[in-house]
Amino acid sequence: MSLDAVLTRIDDDLPQALERLQALLRIPSISTDPAYKANCEEAADWLVADLQSLGVTAEKRATPGHPMVVGHVGEEGPHVLFYGHYDVQPVDPLDLWDRDPFDAQLEDTPAGKVIRARGASDDKGQLMTFVEACRAYAHVNGRMPCRITFFFEGEEESGSPSLVPFMEQNADELRADLALICDTGLFDGRAPAIVTMLRGLLGEELTVTGADKDLHSGLFGGIAINPIRVLARIIAGLHDDKGRVTLPGFYDGVPELPAEMAAQWQALDFDAEGFLGGVGLSVPAGEADRTPLESMWSRPTCEVNGIWGGYTGAGFKTVLPAKASAKISFRLVGSQDPHAIRTAFRDYVRSMLPADCAVEFTGHGASGASRMATTHPAFEKARQALSDEWPEAAAFAGSGGSIPIAGHFKQVLDMDAMLIGFSKDDDQIHSPNEKYDLDSFHKGIRSWARILDAITRG
Amino acid sequence: MSLDAVLTRIDDDLPQALERLQALLRIPSISTDPAYKANCEEAADWLVADLQSLGVTAEKRATPGHPMVVGHVGEEGPHVLFYGHYDVQPVDPLDLWDRDPFDAQLEDTPAGKVIRARGASDDKGQLMTFVEACRAYAHVNGRMPCRITFFFEGEEESGSPSLVPFMEQNADELRADLALICDTGLFDGRAPAIVTMLRGLLGEELTVTGADKDLHSGLFGGIAINPIRVLARIIAGLHDDKGRVTLPGFYDGVPELPAEMAAQWQALDFDAEGFLGGVGLSVPAGEADRTPLESMWSRPTCEVNGIWGGYTGAGFKTVLPAKASAKISFRLVGSQDPHAIRTAFRDYVRSMLPADCAVEFTGHGASGASRMATTHPAFEKARQALSDEWPEAAAFAGSGGSIPIAGHFKQVLDMDAMLIGFSKDDDQIHSPNEKYDLDSFHKGIRSWARILDAITRG
Repeated sequence: MSLDAVLTRIDDDLPQALERLQALLRIPSISTDPAYKANCEEAADWLVADLQSLGVTAEKRATPGHPMVVGHVGEEGPHVLFYGHYDVQPVDPLDLWDRDPFDAQLEDTPAGKVIRARGASDDKGQLMTFVEACRAYAHVNGRMPCRITFFFEGEEESGSPSLVPFMEQNADELRADLALICDTGLFDGRAPAIVTMLRGLLGEELTVTGADKDLHSGLFGGIAINPIRVLARIIAGLHDDKGRVTLPGFYDGVPELPAEMAAQWQALDFDAEGFLGGVGLSVPAGEADRTPLESMWSRPTCEVNGIWGGYTGAGFKTVLPAKASAKISFRLVGSQDPHAIRTAFRDYVRSMLPADCAVEFTGHGASGASRMATTHPAFEKARQALSDEWPEAAAFAGSGGSIPIAGHFKQVLDMDAMLIGFSKDDDQIHSPNEKYDLDSFHKGIRSWARILDAITRG
Repeated sequence: MSLDAVLTRIDDDLPQALERLQALLRIPSISTDPAYKANCEEAADWLVADLQSLGVTAEKRATPGHPMVVGHVGEEGPHVLFYGHYDVQPVDPLDLWDRDPFDAQLEDTPAGKVIRARGASDDKGQLMTFVEACRAYAHVNGRMPCRITFFFEGEEESGSPSLVPFMEQNADELRADLALICDTGLFDGRAPAIVTMLRGLLGEELTVTGADKDLHSGLFGGIAINPIRVLARIIAGLHDDKGRVTLPGFYDGVPELPAEMAAQWQALDFDAEGFLGGVGLSVPAGEADRTPLESMWSRPTCEVNGIWGGYTGAGFKTVLPAKASAKISFRLVGSQDPHAIRTAFRDYVRSMLPADCAVEFTGHGASGASRMATTHPAFEKARQALSDEWPEAAAFAGSGGSIPIAGHFKQVLDMDAMLIGFSKDDDQIHSPNEKYDLDSFHKGIRSWARILDAITRG
């Protein structure tokens, strides 16, 4: 193998790689909304065909939800499994997009060229960095560098309900020496990073009900209970004045940051002001006594992701609504138990209900936090390979996001997972006008070529 | 004039009166939503034509919003002005209606026949009780009983922005000896009532903004401010544990109920349990130390009529939203000053904003409470006329709703207003499946014939 030849091929093939990514981005594979079910199938079909064009034995595999894509290639060398997800977030509010979110185009910006579309960064663009690295390797060498299993999911943005059952049912087929996951970002938009600490995620939706129908606030106001007011008190009571979550037992299993890790994070010289300034904010709003990186990476949170009730249209309607709803999520760290926290949350909500009010809950996922075993030799090799590609040395970092797949690989398949990604903080994932820097895409492909080379050399 | 002949004509003409009401109800004249502007015009045109068919000199009069309908008839006797509104509330949530809200039909129910449609009770059905009484009188006697000015508004459900300017510009034309308003209800669904105390209404819409775009709650959760949490704290802080509104100065001008009125209300023997039981509730939820009738009629309130922010669709989206909004209204009593309360509310909201948050306000109407001068002789005549028509004696009552027109007649035109209506508490005005009892419609028409007769006899 000649790494230089592969890197040259990657540079030469970039326009074609971009066209392939645009084709995948044009498919609106929104997993959380049943209206897009056929589009999720279409994205899976596209990936199967693309992998087959590389000589991978690939197929779409049915689940009770959206299908998995599984592919195998290669006979020799170490065996890695690469994971990515082809599903994307919803696009609303649509009116805040500057273009059709599924008409992926290259845009010139003051900071360079970007690919603008829903999923450009999370996760189709990242997923394709690995596929393109494999394509270049196969083109130059006529084969893959090692044994590779491709494993693409279509439910990551909707709680991955089929993932663990599928892994359990196909454990022997999926087990490899190491999992590679491309769904994270560069540190501070500049330094390559291997994420070794991930927060867990617990989602809860609740609907508080009062009267059995909407009421006139003149006739009933002052005598009938208002579920919006009840819900507001519930939400307001979830945090104390210091920004700490008030649920009993919530901080059980939340460790203090080890001194060594704290020192390394300190050395990263995180620019909190610049980070917040990029989205129009200036002051860290988390727990009063924690550093910004702690708040984002190693502290748990409770956030309201959505709320609705009563009349929300134009003008005014003096309705006293029958119900009010919210979607609330918790980011978890250390050994916090998502099931215990779900119970504590529901108990708390019920304790806040006045007479005549009822509540219904719907759970949306419950995964604990993950911490990677950085002692696996591949971590150090990958850190070196990334440092060779990028202007700054690679770091071991935390991540505030939740990628439960890493924990599942460990628990279900007893595999270590290495999380490497190239997105930037301003990629606006989950927001209008999501983008992926062309530089992230290009250097990302080159990074995987270097990492595969380093791992394969053994 | 023969009152008996007019009442007989009303009985005989009821099927045709019902058909005319159905025709008016078929017009979806939702005033708050600009999409229905043409329908509001259509409803005004329908009323002009109907009045003209009675020999009334009627016309549609333009305003900056929806048009007024003004008509004059008669030369002799006392001069009354009758007010009603032809606009209706929005119909959402549409899926809770058992039929098309604008396909008005007669339904058999265990409690008798009802007319089911948006606006059946509020206020098209009530408005037509007066028009039909006039029609019957003219049919029998070839003329109206006295001088009558008809004055129909099309913006009552959206804050009546054009009303006061129109009254000021046309004061000489509109001034009469007494205003009659048909937009209230029977007491407890059984006794006819003349409402002598009305709450005022102040509407406020607010949007709290944090970041300049929606954020990923994994990436930014714990460091970026969440406007839904800020809004929840604002709403939760508006009431104390006793159900009292916390805004400084809010209770300035709120009088204690006079002993005489308290005694009369006590005698009404209000069935709070039955009233709340009709909508699936059981416990009065207002101020802890007030009777249910006080809470509804003579105490001010603060209610949240709508709230929205973040992701509210199917499934889950881990968004940390850029903004959150609510519609909040205050019912006012005594001499509470709506403008002072608006200022206190906005000051309070601003005082609750953390760093990096901004707020925008939109006012929706601001009217003080009204108390009628029951010493006007027409009040006692009307009370007797109503007692003759209905099985129970008529009462002077309060109303939790806000009909600011009554105050405007006094302040702008120096006219007393008499509020008489026939809706029932279970009419579901402003809610899905609004209805008006056929009995309310029929006896309502007969009641106006009796009242006009009593007033005209002098």
